[in-house]
Amino acid sequence: MKNSLQLLSRFNNNNFSVLSKQQACFYATIQSKAVRFEKFGNPLEVLKVDDVNIDTSVKGDEVVVKMLAAPINQADINTVQGVYGRRPNTFPAIPGNEGVGIVEEVGSNVTGIKKGDHVIPSSAGLGTWRTHLVCKADNLTTVSKDLPVEYASILSVNPCTAYRLLNDFVDLKQGDVIIQNGANSMVGLLVIQLAKMRGIQTINLIRQRPNYELTVQRLKDLGADIVMPYSFSNNNTSMNRLLSDMPKPKLALNCVGGEAARVVAKYLADDGVMVTYGGMSKQPITLPTGPFIFNNITLKGFWMTKWVETHSKEERKKMIDELSKLVVDKKLLAFMETFKFSEFNYALEKSFEESRERKVVLKMDE
Amino acid sequence: MKNSLQLLSRFNNNNFSVLSKQQACFYATIQSKAVRFEKFGNPLEVLKVDDVNIDTSVKGDEVVVKMLAAPINQADINTVQGVYGRRPNTFPAIPGNEGVGIVEEVGSNVTGIKKGDHVIPSSAGLGTWRTHLVCKADNLTTVSKDLPVEYASILSVNPCTAYRLLNDFVDLKQGDVIIQNGANSMVGLLVIQLAKMRGIQTINLIRQRPNYELTVQRLKDLGADIVMPYSFSNNNTSMNRLLSDMPKPKLALNCVGGEAARVVAKYLADDGVMVTYGGMSKQPITLPTGPFIFNNITLKGFWMTKWVETHSKEERKKMIDELSKLVVDKKLLAFMETFKFSEFNYALEKSFEESRERKVVLKMDE
Repeated sequence: MKNSLQLLSRFNNNNFSVLSKQQACFYATIQSKAVRFEKFGNPLEVLKVDDVNIDTSVKGDEVVVKMLAAPINQADINTVQGVYGRRPNTFPAIPGNEGVGIVEEVGSNVTGIKKGDHVIPSSAGLGTWRTHLVCKADNLTTVSKDLPVEYASILSVNPCTAYRLLNDFVDLKQGDVIIQNGANSMVGLLVIQLAKMRGIQTINLIRQRPNYELTVQRLKDLGADIVMPYSFSNNNTSMNRLLSDMPKPKLALNCVGGEAARVVAKYLADDGVMVTYGGMSKQPITLPTGPFIFNNITLKGFWMTKWVETHSKEERKKMIDELSKLVVDKKLLAFMETFKFSEFNYALEKSFEESRERKVVLKMDE
Repeated sequence: MKNSLQLLSRFNNNNFSVLSKQQACFYATIQSKAVRFEKFGNPLEVLKVDDVNIDTSVKGDEVVVKMLAAPINQADINTVQGVYGRRPNTFPAIPGNEGVGIVEEVGSNVTGIKKGDHVIPSSAGLGTWRTHLVCKADNLTTVSKDLPVEYASILSVNPCTAYRLLNDFVDLKQGDVIIQNGANSMVGLLVIQLAKMRGIQTINLIRQRPNYELTVQRLKDLGADIVMPYSFSNNNTSMNRLLSDMPKPKLALNCVGGEAARVVAKYLADDGVMVTYGGMSKQPITLPTGPFIFNNITLKGFWMTKWVETHSKEERKKMIDELSKLVVDKKLLAFMETFKFSEFNYALEKSFEESRERKVVLKMDE
């Protein structure tokens, strides 16, 4: 009904008299599936996979996208819980801030995106946990089709975050040192690899869990210079011996908070910067006043969503292309486990496993 | 004996044959008094007032200064305790990082400073708690003789700190708001006045002590827009009502740490900066991760000693002259209580009084 009305109004506005075969195809409704929630709460309870009829009659500046893959990020979970920095404007809302799709239809005014292109969201909040998406072309950015879809689906948050953390806060040169907690998070692993390419040394703190030795090996294989459990970093004598032949870290990266933030800040060089980009422990950051006054350390924060909102499309595209090339050239690795979109509930449960070291990615085309 | 040897060696070096009257006066020893300590510890125990013979035979680039006044700052106390960011290189050491004196003699190579000038140290660590001082002219900066000596003696730390806090961290325009804890500290009171001159609004947090109402009145008289006890700032509803018609603070100033730091950081605008320049409570700063990530707040530190070491003499002189003019024009007030240098022990005890709202200044010429 709505579709028919919209069709009529289009005829009036655009003075069309005959529908071409292609146009006829635009003005259609397709059955799609979408994960939705009606209120904030426990994702396992409030998220439902719904059948949604979507109107694929694209307006001039719109495109129809068939989603191929989308990850389950912590930010998505926090959005559903209502504790994230951005909230949906209306309910029901569709979660998912990133993902990749293939363009199936393009409106007549669309330039820069064509049918068959692989696209990712230009900014957060598009709602990617669905099989089909109709939106303005402006909300999408094309990516190389050479990128494996799992990589394309996770490119805009974690790899971009790692890239910016290494570029935007201190001037890092070959031989410089950085220190990070949560080093086996996806961002942490990407930071290790991007740092290694530039000759920047990394000190990596991780939890001492049952698979500790394997995790150390994984980090070393990716290029980590030093890996240690948090407990080790509390032993000043051992730490000072271990780090005696390295410059002090200019940059500390914190995605954990609490004690894990204190220990990375503690080893900062004078004028060093700690950047907080996550708070996995849900504990606050506690630091003495001395390092601020006498060592001139700075604490900053980073949020990819805000970065995208405050920078040009061109600047983002340049970063995306650079990172894509590294992935295609097999210089940048990420660890993902894919699940069929039809098994969403199972994938969601998997994403909550605490010791998980692989990102859960939903595949819509399987 | 030492003096004689030095005299001889000068003759050899400079090939003097006859001493002029003025030169004869240079090569003399005078009796002076100095506060000294032989080891770090409780200032009331380790500080002694000693008789010190000083050699006033100035070398070419030296000057002899008769000290007029010097304050007892918290930094001086912390230096004696051994917990400050700078430590003396040798013992016995003379504390006192600032003060003012009158030049009594100048070496033959000295330019820019002449007999009778009023001078303050160019940097920290000179040791001002003494009646006479011989040092390189380069270690001194001239100040206006129109400045009351108590003001001249305290100009280089607290007023300069207040000046830099308002100038170096965020771009503050008329109508902008700042929030500070420890607002009745000397720096706090100076911040209020300097902000008022520029039309910057101040929110001032102080402790609820017996003389609370008087303190509020004092702050208001100096130009404070809002004064409140820390307890009030914990009431979100009241705070939101109170601050509803003001822009959120762009700058938070923290000289306390602990809970007092958290409350001023809490009300920062997005992209706001908290600058820590003291830690009176000796408590660490504890902040949640959210404001770093989602509100892009920054935590920085400030230390006047470091600023002086990293900036030009000209830049400092410009600031000193600007502040001096404000004092001479009676636009900038500070609260001081003077004590005779001969009553040093009494003055020191007074400086430890917790509710003291006046800086203790030692007067050497009374």
